[in-house]
Amino acid sequence: MRKLSLKELNRVSPKEFKEQKKAPIIIVLDNVRSALNVGSAFRTADAFALEKIYLCGITATPPHREILKTAIGATESMDWEYQKEVGETLQQLKAEGYTLLAVEQVDERTYLQDFKADKTKKYALILGNEVKGVSEEAIALTDQCLEVPQYGTKHSLNVSVCLGVVTWELFRQLKF
Amino acid sequence: MRKLSLKELNRVSPKEFKEQKKAPIIIVLDNVRSALNVGSAFRTADAFALEKIYLCGITATPPHREILKTAIGATESMDWEYQKEVGETLQQLKAEGYTLLAVEQVDERTYLQDFKADKTKKYALILGNEVKGVSEEAIALTDQCLEVPQYGTKHSLNVSVCLGVVTWELFRQLKF
Repeated sequence: MRKLSLKELNRVSPKEFKEQKKAPIIIVLDNVRSALNVGSAFRTADAFALEKIYLCGITATPPHREILKTAIGATESMDWEYQKEVGETLQQLKAEGYTLLAVEQVDERTYLQDFKADKTKKYALILGNEVKGVSEEAIALTDQCLEVPQYGTKHSLNVSVCLGVVTWELFRQLKF
Repeated sequence: MRKLSLKELNRVSPKEFKEQKKAPIIIVLDNVRSALNVGSAFRTADAFALEKIYLCGITATPPHREILKTAIGATESMDWEYQKEVGETLQQLKAEGYTLLAVEQVDERTYLQDFKADKTKKYALILGNEVKGVSEEAIALTDQCLEVPQYGTKHSLNVSVCLGVVTWELFRQLKF
């Protein structure tokens, strides 16, 4: 097996990216504390060609040194917007027809392996603060909560990793 | 929907973790440069109760300040070992019956959505350096290369995110 050169990967330019068809998925970061996690969200959203990222509350916004470290340029391609109140963002997305999925450990959660995406729908994935999780305000507005099943000693996955896992699962089901 | 308390998550202790049944998956980090990525690998491996992590070449080992930042204690639960030569690690794993899966962009890759895990097998997932990827030496020994399909402007996902995505896909197929 031969490793591919960067050229052979045939990636799109930021201009081509903006014009291409997107996966019907929006990311909402609800008071994410670490700018490294924000940058990583940009990079993941770019990789799966998602529609947009909403940065809410205390979530850092580009340009930002730490975001740049993990986004590595994906802030140029990805469409994003800052909104102070996550509740307003979610109500707006609901009005636009998005199904709201919060990634959070609640009593009435759907484990990720049991989630069945509907290919006729468009989704907003809400990820919360590293310590407090998704806010009560966002949980109250969400249609469904997803939980990544966990069998270890720690309470949760890293926010960036969790976002990657859930985005992949949703993307895989919608795309393939 | 009500958010669960930490107690309600019923996580296992490091001692219980060591005694519980593991998913038949081993992670091999082949010259990973960032200790933050190493710590994240520990946290992900803990969450899915994987068997072991091999740290090879220049990959940092615990105890390490940056590993601690992202592993948040998962170095206490996860079984790990340092081996200088990744080739020796892979030959040993092969002899122990593991199927070697490198996550790398090569000409004869299997896209992640096309990969079908065999529930009778055990797997070693090889992740490589942030810039150079999985080493030629490891590629030469691997049974199959997996690639996460990407539609954006960047060449690759973050190593931690990529590890999370591929581990989830393998885990999901083996477990559910």
